[in-house]
Amino acid sequence: MSSDRKIVKPKPLSGFPEWLPEQRLVELRWIDTIRRTFEAYGFCNIDPPSVEDVEVLASKGEDTDKEIYGVRRLAGGEGRDEPKIALHYDLTVPLARYVAQHFNELSFPFKRYQIQRAWRGERPQEGRFREFYQCDLDVLDTGEVSLHFDAELPVIVYEILRQLRVEPVTMHINNRKVLEGFYTGLGIPDVVGAIRILDKLDKVGAAEVTRMLVDDLHLASDVAARSVALASIRTPDTSFEERVREFGVRSDLLDTGIAELKFVMQAAQAIPAGVVFADLSVARGFDYYTGTVYEGKLAAFPGYPSVFSGGRYDNLVGGFLRQNLPGVGMSIGLTRIFSKLLAEGKIETGASCPTQVLVIQLPDTQREQALETGRTLRQRGFNVEVYHEARKIGHQIRYATRKGIRYAWFPDPARHEVKDLASGEQSPANPATWRPANQPASET
Amino acid sequence: MSSDRKIVKPKPLSGFPEWLPEQRLVELRWIDTIRRTFEAYGFCNIDPPSVEDVEVLASKGEDTDKEIYGVRRLAGGEGRDEPKIALHYDLTVPLARYVAQHFNELSFPFKRYQIQRAWRGERPQEGRFREFYQCDLDVLDTGEVSLHFDAELPVIVYEILRQLRVEPVTMHINNRKVLEGFYTGLGIPDVVGAIRILDKLDKVGAAEVTRMLVDDLHLASDVAARSVALASIRTPDTSFEERVREFGVRSDLLDTGIAELKFVMQAAQAIPAGVVFADLSVARGFDYYTGTVYEGKLAAFPGYPSVFSGGRYDNLVGGFLRQNLPGVGMSIGLTRIFSKLLAEGKIETGASCPTQVLVIQLPDTQREQALETGRTLRQRGFNVEVYHEARKIGHQIRYATRKGIRYAWFPDPARHEVKDLASGEQSPANPATWRPANQPASET
Repeated sequence: MSSDRKIVKPKPLSGFPEWLPEQRLVELRWIDTIRRTFEAYGFCNIDPPSVEDVEVLASKGEDTDKEIYGVRRLAGGEGRDEPKIALHYDLTVPLARYVAQHFNELSFPFKRYQIQRAWRGERPQEGRFREFYQCDLDVLDTGEVSLHFDAELPVIVYEILRQLRVEPVTMHINNRKVLEGFYTGLGIPDVVGAIRILDKLDKVGAAEVTRMLVDDLHLASDVAARSVALASIRTPDTSFEERVREFGVRSDLLDTGIAELKFVMQAAQAIPAGVVFADLSVARGFDYYTGTVYEGKLAAFPGYPSVFSGGRYDNLVGGFLRQNLPGVGMSIGLTRIFSKLLAEGKIETGASCPTQVLVIQLPDTQREQALETGRTLRQRGFNVEVYHEARKIGHQIRYATRKGIRYAWFPDPARHEVKDLASGEQSPANPATWRPANQPASET
Repeated sequence: MSSDRKIVKPKPLSGFPEWLPEQRLVELRWIDTIRRTFEAYGFCNIDPPSVEDVEVLASKGEDTDKEIYGVRRLAGGEGRDEPKIALHYDLTVPLARYVAQHFNELSFPFKRYQIQRAWRGERPQEGRFREFYQCDLDVLDTGEVSLHFDAELPVIVYEILRQLRVEPVTMHINNRKVLEGFYTGLGIPDVVGAIRILDKLDKVGAAEVTRMLVDDLHLASDVAARSVALASIRTPDTSFEERVREFGVRSDLLDTGIAELKFVMQAAQAIPAGVVFADLSVARGFDYYTGTVYEGKLAAFPGYPSVFSGGRYDNLVGGFLRQNLPGVGMSIGLTRIFSKLLAEGKIETGASCPTQVLVIQLPDTQREQALETGRTLRQRGFNVEVYHEARKIGHQIRYATRKGIRYAWFPDPARHEVKDLASGEQSPANPATWRPANQPASET
């Protein structure tokens, strides 16, 4: 250690979350649960590169253009074959490009999940990061996509949240055809414009939205009032239909929308009460949604942004393929949920390592005996460290305690013993047959 | 489908590998195996951001400076709080920064693994990518790092390769102290210079290396000859010592190096014969290695670059912390191995999805019956798709066959039946008790 060494202690990069080992251990368990559930429903995984051609990203970008992170060799000297690339800002554009590129090698309906980081060069704030994990689930098909999938996605996502104990959570489902059909039935010419304005209801309130509908879209005030009133409908079941019908508005598109939303809400009855709502205020501003739309919130933090969302779209691959590819999908904001619950103290972290057993190196036994004990336990599926040197036993036990390792093993060939560091109890044990106190056989 | 739509079918980005679902399924299994084995030895996971401050990367960069991919918002307008960032080119620099930043919150010895992508803006060629997965395993400690870990790493890495059937593989182990001690004993003043030249033995051959030692380092020709002769020593056990001693060269550092390499080679005897060699030609050019060095090769493809490598270093966190942090580590080039074996047809891909059972929707049963069957099977741990509509059975079966789904389930409430699409056999079954033909109880 030279005293003149220049020391620059690194600082965290704003918007790039990073977890300690004990936190990451929980995040990994979350990712495992998400993945296992996606796979339980038969979704395959894809893992496209982190970057796409800039043209590909820009062609699909909505308001995200200015958030795109370009990637370029620092040394410059961009050769002719050096592609202009940028980090993907969501997992949907890479999906579209992937499907178009590998179209002839995929089976449809194409059911895929993707658990990856995405990047956005926006100003970091609560729930908004520059680098974050998204977990996406989509079904694409040639021709039409069965409504079966619109109904299946909420069930899958709720199953995940329940296992992760991300509760209380609410899931708000609507159908763009209900909105568009209703506005068409009301005689509103600029349906998309109306949806855009009504999408602001949450943020600016009913009075301001009514004013905008009247002033900006030139709607009659009773038409504006009924549009706003529609958005106040929220039912835990299919009873939203009666409430909509009360307005006496009629259109074929409205009938279709109501039928689709009812189908999805019927399937959602498998989810415990209090979670899912037919919520006619949900519009999901993006132009490309055309049917079912989903939005999920942490009920305990109403001001926090959506933690999952998605919907149905008519064509994902416009510009890439001559064929239309409609689909329906949902995206879970893993980092957004995890970081919030962590910050609120709702996630209990435990050990800082996956080790279950620390094999102690005793001064009077052979190192080989300790290694052999470790091998035997590992072959039986346990995570085991063999302490690296024959230091004082107290020192080795403190190492285990500090890292949250539950058991210390004394590999005395004459008489193995294991100590439960939680209870302090120590008892004889055989590495070939031992089981932790409270662990059922199936967990080993 | 408008005929005037401009279609730009996307092309692959050179150096950014991407797999089809059936290939990714195997890659995911590989990653699971690697992770499970790392955790079986008690290593914790960390997952630092994909980017680091440019200063951090540049301060550690060896010859990689010009390969660094900078990251910058395409829209520009870099604000004062906009950090200068770049994608990490390995997993070692992020580890160093992470440990320095969180030093007071970590337990030492700090045993961590990291499975992440890294990026290098180099010209793609066989085995060299611009984006690739690395799987790193390191142990850092304050003060000294026990040689126990130098001996443990090859055992862990071999266990992984054996499980992945990445065979035949050879692991070449050396110790920089043997080289430095030998050259010092020979009276060579520029030991590092000699190592650099000898590191080229593989590429340029013994004659050229001898010439360089004589011409560039001004060594006497017998000294050069003995240096080159040392590098020809390769033994499957600790017998390298005799061969080194035959030269009659003496130095304390040489003795230490021999003792350390013997310790590692003794532990490596647990690995089947033909894999591990004490190989005195291995130098690993990087200046920071100071003891054990490792290098792994695919024996069937001798011209292919190393597929794993690593070694012992005296201080990882120079510039970040006042304290020295020595360590020892190994890095497995996952993408490098996987892409090669895939290209050589050595990896058998199967199904393109994780689904084990497709529940058929029969025209004469309720959809609910099919969904219920799916739920029951899923609760028992199976991956199950319920076909999304009651199309012709032949159509549904073809869907299963195309995706490699093994079983088709007919959810007739009066009499469930399951068809093994591999054997064609169809038999009655109960969703609450069914087991696949050749699957032991533990695999469900």
